[in-house]
Amino acid sequence: MEDYEGLGTSFVVHYYNLFDNERPSLKSLYQPTSLLTFEGQKFQGVEEISNKINSLPFNQCRHSISTIDTQPSSINGGIIVFVSGSLQLAGEEHQLRFS
Amino acid sequence: MEDYEGLGTSFVVHYYNLFDNERPSLKSLYQPTSLLTFEGQKFQGVEEISNKINSLPFNQCRHSISTIDTQPSSINGGIIVFVSGSLQLAGEEHQLRFS
Repeated sequence: MEDYEGLGTSFVVHYYNLFDNERPSLKSLYQPTSLLTFEGQKFQGVEEISNKINSLPFNQCRHSISTIDTQPSSINGGIIVFVSGSLQLAGEEHQLRFS
Repeated sequence: MEDYEGLGTSFVVHYYNLFDNERPSLKSLYQPTSLLTFEGQKFQGVEEISNKINSLPFNQCRHSISTIDTQPSSINGGIIVFVSGSLQLAGEEHQLRFS
């Protein structure tokens, strides 16, 4: 796992590009063991997660990424990524901060 | 790993309690493979990490935790914790948000 920073960054850019422009396609990025924690609630697996993402109470949004921190996961060869930025919802004046 | 939520929450409370009241003791929580990413810079191992933490440009601080999200790590039996909250520095009027 040499270029985990490049891989992590590419993944994040791809993820939010799909989220903003082609949200239903995010489904392809999740697996049966995937676990989403969203505002304290947990959603497990492809269907639960994609249902949650696609039922969010806003249609158009735009994520602006401020920082991407990546770390290799020590044992399983994964990558842990921390992202911060802001989120502009259609029709809302103020941006929301997210991480 | 049944009670990963309880374990993760206890760890976070312990971590910030040490950070605010006994910062040099944080050293005991890190291992040679530990990796800290701090504002884009990486610090690896016990010495590098504890030196960084102990050289932060503020002495007294108080973390207030707003949310703790925990997930089990699928392969290595670890726990991934996401924390958000605010940070009050001594002598500063405004709190900083952190995650």
